[in-house]
Parts: sequence; structure tokens; C-alpha cells
Amino acid sequence: MLEGMAKTGELALIELIRQRAGGARGTVRVGIGDDCAILAPKAGDDVVVTTDFSLEGRHFKREWHPMPSIGHRVLARGLSDLAAMGAKPMAAFLSLALPREFAKNRGEIRGLLDGVLWLGVEVGVVLAGGDTSESPSNHILADIVLLGSVPRGKALRRSGARVEDVLYCTGTLGGAAVELEELSKAPGKFHKAKAGEDHPHLFPAPRLKAGQALLRRGLATACMDISDGISTDLAHLCEASGVGAEVEAGWLPLHPLTKKLSAEDGLRAALDGGEDYELLFTAKAATKMPRMLGGVPVTRIGKIVAKRKGRAQVVVVGIDGKRTELKAQGWEHLR
Amino acid sequence: MLEGMAKTGELALIELIRQRAGGARGTVRVGIGDDCAILAPKAGDDVVVTTDFSLEGRHFKREWHPMPSIGHRVLARGLSDLAAMGAKPMAAFLSLALPREFAKNRGEIRGLLDGVLWLGVEVGVVLAGGDTSESPSNHILADIVLLGSVPRGKALRRSGARVEDVLYCTGTLGGAAVELEELSKAPGKFHKAKAGEDHPHLFPAPRLKAGQALLRRGLATACMDISDGISTDLAHLCEASGVGAEVEAGWLPLHPLTKKLSAEDGLRAALDGGEDYELLFTAKAATKMPRMLGGVPVTRIGKIVAKRKGRAQVVVVGIDGKRTELKAQGWEHLR
Repeated sequence: MLEGMAKTGELALIELIRQRAGGARGTVRVGIGDDCAILAPKAGDDVVVTTDFSLEGRHFKREWHPMPSIGHRVLARGLSDLAAMGAKPMAAFLSLALPREFAKNRGEIRGLLDGVLWLGVEVGVVLAGGDTSESPSNHILADIVLLGSVPRGKALRRSGARVEDVLYCTGTLGGAAVELEELSKAPGKFHKAKAGEDHPHLFPAPRLKAGQALLRRGLATACMDISDGISTDLAHLCEASGVGAEVEAGWLPLHPLTKKLSAEDGLRAALDGGEDYELLFTAKAATKMPRMLGGVPVTRIGKIVAKRKGRAQVVVVGIDGKRTELKAQGWEHLR
Repeated sequence: MLEGMAKTGELALIELIRQRAGGARGTVRVGIGDDCAILAPKAGDDVVVTTDFSLEGRHFKREWHPMPSIGHRVLARGLSDLAAMGAKPMAAFLSLALPREFAKNRGEIRGLLDGVLWLGVEVGVVLAGGDTSESPSNHILADIVLLGSVPRGKALRRSGARVEDVLYCTGTLGGAAVELEELSKAPGKFHKAKAGEDHPHLFPAPRLKAGQALLRRGLATACMDISDGISTDLAHLCEASGVGAEVEAGWLPLHPLTKKLSAEDGLRAALDGGEDYELLFTAKAATKMPRMLGGVPVTRIGKIVAKRKGRAQVVVVGIDGKRTELKAQGWEHLR
């Protein structure tokens, strides 16, 4: 672990990561430096695990994304999966392959690590290991692994939605897609953007506290994160639960950035735009849902219906009452 | 998780992996198909975690390595880290990015998965998740994550070696380096090689049972795997333990393949050749060490000495009694 670049004289990179990651703490007994990291989960907790690639040219571009944004987004992808299960983060593992030219550009690497570690501190997750290598091409390649804990058997799942449940989401939708569109038209525009500011694409805020509150208060019957857009992710939730769904177009909490678009395009950004990293969840109709969860607004956006042969599994109901099939056409990254 | 290629029409790949991985079992409660996998570690166990890149052009070449060998080696790298801690494998997570041309070549993908799953079945580890993506270049990119369990606080570590401890290794050394050399000279030669045959480079056997026996029987004071060659890895062990070491050249268990080389080159292959994936460990001088552990021979190869200023940390003692500094010059993959 974390020795790949040592073989090409990059011991300094590992040492940089080790220093900046800080020592073992919390459930992490041993972090970077042995063959494996050692974690001590609380007795009676389940451990949830997710892993996500972030590959230059597929998930980000150096010309578009400032280095801290690349690092932030690498970690945010994994954290959002933990949020969807209602989990508390335990440890992150970062595998990082860098183009050869980076050996000479310590500033760029520091920027990327800044992005990872700022968000890591924000949510209290320890960077406990990973791997480093020289990239075989000119692309930055990252793979993030997140481990989290949940009380045994209590993890939020995609499969628990039942007919007549109410459909909710956290935060706002469509902002990430609009910001990415702006980024593609004016790459230099966001080079001074910072984590903590409202940049839904560059610095998304994974909804860990909202997910944990859903789990702790037993509010949700099913939950997942919106990483590929509602049209794709709601189809996954319905498939896993064996149900259908109706989304009310007029109820969707649109991000203010969508106001720059026509009503039609704003709606499409909210439904198909990916990487909002909000939570999509269901609850029994009788459940009294708070307006805010973990500091984030919660909005009712539709309901769960029976899945019937010959009927679209997911339908969007327009403001005019017109019903249209909602086809999965979620975000395909940088296409 | 495991949805990246879905966006480029590769749902079939995910379905293929899901089917071939089999369902959740053992400590894996939920495998592929939700935002995270869910594991239920035994109360009182620590969880150990390791992650390793396998990147085409850095760690393997398609012209040299048959697909099943690529898959086997991806998993073996991670399993060997578990072996070094004395851990039992719980779950594997495979992140896999494939060149676009692979969408049309299901046979190649099957071959790679065959390699991963053959070894997975052999050691009893569940493929519980991962991620898929299209590669941004023409390189196959894999990142393997392994989780294992050890009784709390009992994991074998690099840092426990003490002065006067005896130094041991499992199996034989140098075979992987010699086979790789042969592979580079005659790439077609090994295209029919199979897992289970003695191919130290193409199909290494991680020493899980030997590591588990060391832990269970309390035999070792320190342990790590030999992935980069003894000259590099013994330096890491000595550094972590704050000691020095002497290796007896005449005691090294050379792989039969090294007989094809001069005595000098055979010794270099054993000391600097990487990827043998044997265990390097220390024990108190009073410990009665079995000749075999987990079905693998164990050989005494030297001893731990005090670290002294002005003296080489690791020394190799020749058959003629001549003492030479053993400099870390471990395997640099495909250079």
C-alpha cells in the first residue's frame, strides 16, 4: 500500500500524503504504513463499503476543474454513497495514479490533496491508506474507497419502497448540471472557486447528516443518492423495490442556477442532470416528515405507485397535469 | 457502485460480474446492487483493509499476460497484503476501467473475470462490489480492495522485530522475476498457462494459510509480504521495527527457475526480484518454528541485529562469509 510511486522515486509523495492525512484515530487503529490499515468497528455495527473511480477525461478535466475541486469530488462521490445508507464515515482509502510530469509539480498534487483533506476534515473521515502509481497515460486516475458504520441490520436500502409511500429528496436539483455547462463554456471562470461556497458541481456537499438522521429517526422506507439524475436513479430504486413512481414536476426543488435556463431546460437539468449528490428517499404516508434534515431542506416530490404491465414504471406529472414517461437518461459525465 | 459502464451501455458487464460473483454470503450481507455493500464483521474482530492498483503498462502488458493471469494477479496482490497481517479474507471490491474496444470483446472480459474468480473461489473471498468505467486511454485499469478479519489487536505487523530474532521466509524466491524475464523474451510462450500450475509470476499463490497459522499459533514477532523483493521489503520491516538485519545468501530458498541463471544472477533475482508474494517474518530465537506452515515450506534466512550508526541497516553474508550492504533495489515492475 502507498508504495507504488516509491519505486519511481516518489517516496516523497507517500510521505506528503502520510503527513497530511494525520495519524490513526477514531476506529482507525493503524493507518498508512503497514501492509493493511487496521480498523476496529464497534461490536454490533455493520460495515458498509463503496468504491468509485474518478478518471480524468471521464469524470473531470484538468482544463475545467481546479485541483482542489478534483480532490473534493473524488471524496464526495464515495461519501454520498455512505450518506445514502445512513452510515457514519470510518475511513477513506485513496488510490492515485499521476502522470509522470506531476513528479515535478508538487503544487498541483498539494492542490488535489487539499481538496480531499478539506472535505475529509469537514465530515470527520480519516484517510487511512491507498496506493500510488505513475499513470500509464497522461491522465490522473483516482479510485476512492469509503468504509462507514451503521447499527447492525439498519442500513438504509434501495429496496424498501412500498406502494403509497411518499417520495422525497433533499436540497435542490439541477445545479450541478448547470454549473458544469457553464464550466464547459468558460473553463477559466471558476479557477478561484472554493470549497464551502455554493458550487454544486465543483464542490458538492454529500448529505451525510441527512442520511444519518433518516436512519436514526427511522423515517425512510428506502433511500439512495442522486448521482446520475432522478430519471436514472429513481428507476434503480423502483427496480430494487418492485414498484413504480410518479414525480410531480411542479414540486421539484430547482437550484437557483436553473433559472438561467428555460422552464423546460431547467426541468430537464433537475430530472436528468447528474452529480447533485442529494438523497432520494421514500417514507410511509403517515410519517410526519420534518422540513429540514441534517441542516438541509426536504421536499416532497411525488409518490410510489404499483408497477403494472403495460404502464411506464416512472411517470412525471407536468404542471398542466399531463403524464409523461420518465425515461432513464441520466448524466453521462463529460459527453 | 458498478454503474459507471451502464452510462455507456455497459449494463451487461455489470450484470455479468454480478452473476459470476454469486450472491452475498459469509460476512457479506449485501453485495453488488445497492449504494454500498454491507458487511457484518464478528464482534471483537478488527477489519484490515488494503487497496492496490494494477495498471496496464505499469503492472502488466496485454501482449505478455493472458487475461486470466491479469485477473489472478489483480486479486493476488491484495490477498498477499491480507496474508501478511494473518487475516482471513472477508470481501473483495474490484474497480475496473476498460478500453472502449472491450465493449465488443466479451471473451476478453470473461477471461479477466475468470482469473479473479478462480482465485476468489480458491481462497473463499466474495466479490462484493466495485465500480466500472470506460478507460480514458487504451489501458486496462484495475484497483482491487480487500477486507479481512483478525482477532482484535492481533494482526501481524511490520514493527515487532527485535534484536536476536530469527528471520524467515515462506516458499521460494526469485521465480517470479525469472518467469517475467522469460515472458518478455517470448510473449507467446505462456498463453496456455493456467492457474494452479507453478507459474510464480503469472499465477502467484498468496500465502493466506501460512499468515493465518503464524497469527493463530503466535509464532511471529513481525511479518510482511515480499512484493517488491527482499532487498526493498526487508528494509521496510527493519525501518518499522527500528532494527537491522543480516541475510545469509547461502540459506535463501531459490526457486528452481533461478537455476537457469548464473549463481550471481539467481541470487539477485531472489533478493531484488519482486512479486514472489511470499511472507517475510521474524520470530524469537527460542520459538520452535515448524518446517511447513499452511502447506508451504518455511526457511530460516538470517537474523535481526541492532541498528548502528555508520553500519549498513541490512547486510547480506555471502557463502564465502563476505559481508555486503543489501541496498533496496526492488522490482520496478515493467521497466
